[in-house]
Amino acid sequence: MNRAQERLRSLLQRKKLDAILFSSLENIRFLCGFTGSDGALIYGREERVFLSDSRYEEQARAEVRGAVFERYRKKNEGIARSLRALRVKRLGFEASALTWETFQNLKAHLPRVTLVPLAAEISGLRACKDPEEIERIRRAIQIASESFLDALSRLKPGVQEKTAGDLLEFRMKRRGGEGPSFPTIVASGPRAALPHGKASDKRMEKGEMVVVDFGARYQGYHSDETKTMILGRPDARQKKIYDLVRKAQERAIRATRPGVGVRSIDRAAREVISRAGYGQFFGHGTGHGIGLAVHEYPTLSPRGSGRVEPGMIFSVEPGIYLPGWGGVRLEDLVLVTDRGCEVLTYLSKDLKDNVLKG
Amino acid sequence: MNRAQERLRSLLQRKKLDAILFSSLENIRFLCGFTGSDGALIYGREERVFLSDSRYEEQARAEVRGAVFERYRKKNEGIARSLRALRVKRLGFEASALTWETFQNLKAHLPRVTLVPLAAEISGLRACKDPEEIERIRRAIQIASESFLDALSRLKPGVQEKTAGDLLEFRMKRRGGEGPSFPTIVASGPRAALPHGKASDKRMEKGEMVVVDFGARYQGYHSDETKTMILGRPDARQKKIYDLVRKAQERAIRATRPGVGVRSIDRAAREVISRAGYGQFFGHGTGHGIGLAVHEYPTLSPRGSGRVEPGMIFSVEPGIYLPGWGGVRLEDLVLVTDRGCEVLTYLSKDLKDNVLKG
Repeated sequence: MNRAQERLRSLLQRKKLDAILFSSLENIRFLCGFTGSDGALIYGREERVFLSDSRYEEQARAEVRGAVFERYRKKNEGIARSLRALRVKRLGFEASALTWETFQNLKAHLPRVTLVPLAAEISGLRACKDPEEIERIRRAIQIASESFLDALSRLKPGVQEKTAGDLLEFRMKRRGGEGPSFPTIVASGPRAALPHGKASDKRMEKGEMVVVDFGARYQGYHSDETKTMILGRPDARQKKIYDLVRKAQERAIRATRPGVGVRSIDRAAREVISRAGYGQFFGHGTGHGIGLAVHEYPTLSPRGSGRVEPGMIFSVEPGIYLPGWGGVRLEDLVLVTDRGCEVLTYLSKDLKDNVLKG
Repeated sequence: MNRAQERLRSLLQRKKLDAILFSSLENIRFLCGFTGSDGALIYGREERVFLSDSRYEEQARAEVRGAVFERYRKKNEGIARSLRALRVKRLGFEASALTWETFQNLKAHLPRVTLVPLAAEISGLRACKDPEEIERIRRAIQIASESFLDALSRLKPGVQEKTAGDLLEFRMKRRGGEGPSFPTIVASGPRAALPHGKASDKRMEKGEMVVVDFGARYQGYHSDETKTMILGRPDARQKKIYDLVRKAQERAIRATRPGVGVRSIDRAAREVISRAGYGQFFGHGTGHGIGLAVHEYPTLSPRGSGRVEPGMIFSVEPGIYLPGWGGVRLEDLVLVTDRGCEVLTYLSKDLKDNVLKG
């Protein structure tokens, strides 16, 4: 957090801002600890004010650190009142979080305040995790992975995808998770060709591959992991595609170290798949940062930008999706260390450990 | 849907728009059926184009009705390309959904297109439900209410709030729900004074009141309902506060009929509570519309606007929250009929049916 605070202090100076208005819940939680679902944070050079309505007053008074609490009835009026009291003349705002309507409304309330959009300047604010954040993500991974093992007995022919997914999510909660990071994906057979195939009523069948993409939330922090299981002895094509994705994943993990551009990690995975002739069937990026949001900076894709820094945690998840046939995706979370990276997710992604013969 | 389509046609004419760009996922789903989590819909006078990226191509081709599919790699570039192909000169957009950044980005791509913000004009687009939508909400209510009864045995002294909440959510899924409408609230004893007290590790105790606010999602549509249980014989104060909230709720339900302003329904509930001297402890609105979003138009509050129309479904949920002591909230969903309203939620909100002795 100190690192983020330093970054904000220098940003305030560089852009000659009196304050920054944070409206995204993740940044609000990150900067002042509030976990509710509505509010705003005015982050000034000296003063910090967290604002919310009466529903959250008690919670805010208990949770918020390093900011005073102010209650509003109408949000934008309350924000404007605080900004006037703080004599803010130049205000930065989150360009990717503030809606057009709220922007106009604030402008109308604050005709003499200059509103300065911030985009790239703050996109990586939460990217480098401190030890406490890393610990929470490790715990989220543990909850999710143990729950996966709890639910493994339902990953078998004849069972509906949804039955396995529901059990997995229920176990996450019983193991102390706040819930799944996202609706659990259990995509079997041809459905595995859908990169976002939420668990459905379809029954899994012998010989099919099943993509299971799952994660748990713990104290606000998320895990994210994908295993692809084969329900029976893999045939030649299944083995070939699986090994290719695994090789692509290993290459990307090996390419991950401080100073490297995010595109080159994506390229490391993409090259393996493209050279084998499957480039057009790997339609998404290789990975994404994760923390208080499931998807956050950095984006590892051909169009991503930025360099890898120690403390970043992101996914490495290449995949190949063949319409009508199915697909394979393998996803691990890595923590960037001083010299390379540590793979945080610990369930095996090797083919031999993902063949279910029973 | 025909009603919404007529409304949009007349809006396009009135505002002299060539098309409206929809970016909120609820409106996209409502207007073209896409259930994924990223995309955009260009709703023209004749043409309709749904755009998304390769992850959603297969899903979009299977789900989308009444619009052609176009794939993009970069979202705003893809939208701009389609708008140019359609020769759109004046484009409406959702002012409360489009971010400042996306707006600027589109403007840069489309220097000759006039962008027209739409707010109140489209806020009630989904407010009046058609028979199929009503059926889905009824089904969501049934799933949630039956799951509540499944979990009732865990609402007792010594059990953690979270245990009861988790079981309730798990049962919703087993009964065919897609998941909870929101993180289930189980707030016991003093925690019941938090209007948004998500289920915690706290154990429920004898004599406490427990606010349980829960809902299920079914085919995209949500239910929302709140019961307040008393774990033992209610004392005089518990009885008084409960009866007051119940009376306020009944008044508001009785006030609900077509043509009535939403503020007057709020006032009907608020008067009962204010006259008894508890006005300052009822800090939120009396209700909200519900459908593809848990909270949507109309808002029943002292600052709400609009009139009630047949087919609207909204919550009626007054509450009293006394810091340190606890709280009571009672919430039902009502469907506005031609002459009054039908209460869709069917679990009893009478005190005698909410006393758990043992």
